Amino acid sequence: MKSLSDRAVGVFDSGLGGLTAASKLREFLPHENIVYFGDTARLPYGTRSRQTIVKYAKSDLAFLKSKDVKAVLVACGTVSSNAINELRETEPDLPIVGVLEASADTACEIAQAGNGKVLLIGTSATVGSGKYEEYINSKYKGITILSRACPLFVSLVENKLRCGYSVKRMVAAEYLLDLSQEKPAAVILGCTHYILLADVLHELFPDSVLVDSGEESAKRLAATLSKKDMLNKSEDIGKSEFYVSDASDEFLNKASVFVSDKIKSVGLIDIDQYS
Amino acid sequence: MKSLSDRAVGVFDSGLGGLTAASKLREFLPHENIVYFGDTARLPYGTRSRQTIVKYAKSDLAFLKSKDVKAVLVACGTVSSNAINELRETEPDLPIVGVLEASADTACEIAQAGNGKVLLIGTSATVGSGKYEEYINSKYKGITILSRACPLFVSLVENKLRCGYSVKRMVAAEYLLDLSQEKPAAVILGCTHYILLADVLHELFPDSVLVDSGEESAKRLAATLSKKDMLNKSEDIGKSEFYVSDASDEFLNKASVFVSDKIKSVGLIDIDQYS
Repeated sequence: MKSLSDRAVGVFDSGLGGLTAASKLREFLPHENIVYFGDTARLPYGTRSRQTIVKYAKSDLAFLKSKDVKAVLVACGTVSSNAINELRETEPDLPIVGVLEASADTACEIAQAGNGKVLLIGTSATVGSGKYEEYINSKYKGITILSRACPLFVSLVENKLRCGYSVKRMVAAEYLLDLSQEKPAAVILGCTHYILLADVLHELFPDSVLVDSGEESAKRLAATLSKKDMLNKSEDIGKSEFYVSDASDEFLNKASVFVSDKIKSVGLIDIDQYS
Repeated sequence: MKSLSDRAVGVFDSGLGGLTAASKLREFLPHENIVYFGDTARLPYGTRSRQTIVKYAKSDLAFLKSKDVKAVLVACGTVSSNAINELRETEPDLPIVGVLEASADTACEIAQAGNGKVLLIGTSATVGSGKYEEYINSKYKGITILSRACPLFVSLVENKLRCGYSVKRMVAAEYLLDLSQEKPAAVILGCTHYILLADVLHELFPDSVLVDSGEESAKRLAATLSKKDMLNKSEDIGKSEFYVSDASDEFLNKASVFVSDKIKSVGLIDIDQYS
């Protein structure tokens, strides 16, 4: 039987966006084993109802539990905003870290040292949930929170190979030009796909700090494991396993857009078996 | 017990695109009752594997069968290209009409009277299936078939309310500008969403006939029912019922983009129960 520290860390997302967070996790925790799951049979999550997001997230968690993970990184802004409490209720003994708290904390610290303005951008379900506002208002004073859903961004990133810079810039301007006038101190990229639009977002918000929710959540998970003495004691480089629920060839083709390391193999699973 | 002719016609799509076909069906067959299902919990289909498309399509058909439909319009280019044989094997006695044959026939007739060139545009799964080429080459001589997947188009249409003309035009040009130089006699809109991009497509292909696969398939279903003497004999205006598998409020909000008639109510069903 594996010791607690040897067991893998689970990471899941609706699809490929969470690879940006998994990649940061690998950087922060080189010795951990990582199991990644992307629910490519049912993505995107960001336009679905809360009820369906909760249902899908629970089955994603059940799959990772079947891999005996010791902790879970919810590398999906939509699930972090709409279903994290339900996941924690389902597995009360499992440390589950989402992207919301970590990215909100970093953004608020930046804003407090500046003009106090935070802009949240994310999927319709993330922005519509109001969960960022709820968390920030319960913990910080004097923060002005602006928000905007950018529903086309995930498709733009997932189709990056066929979509030029000019299209990305035009779509980003259409969603965000008015808010760029507000010059927020921090812009929370509330969806793990969005860091791949950093170039056009930097152009629109040249004086703002872009807070990558994937990176922030990976940092927080690393801190959590350390604090709980759950880090892998091995000095070997950890292994990464990847699973998807559909179109594994497509995953291998597209993964290079999201991570620089070449992913050589991916397992295909039937997510309907985990619910 | 209802007579054969009184029973409804079933229409399904991955989401809202098929409403354009249902709307044409209503126009051609004012006395028919129509049951529409949009699989909004699992859309889009066009980027998924054939295996998953077949699985999802079978459950969509099972739901419509539970409504005792007398015939089915597969108002989805992706399913029509990837799963129609499997659906017909599952329900051999049910007339099932897809968008492929009807739109290919119309396009080839136009092309034969012109320069012989047909351009197919559709989702990745539709274009990748090669099924249009297979059908056309088995039935017509002297047709040059060009094709191009336009994976962002469905998202552009579904987000129409927040996406301006300039973005649509730029994305369409990025996908299709080179092929517009070929001046195809007919352009098959192989996805039922695409008719809602007719404005920008007309600009790119000013001398081509745009063949709306939704309209063509609705015409063919009407002809099939007539030929089989399955038309509703009632002189009353038929009723339409709408069902989705997620986010029914969102469906009511967005439906106005797809059909001019106001849809007042929609049922929410659990599609996982039909498999």
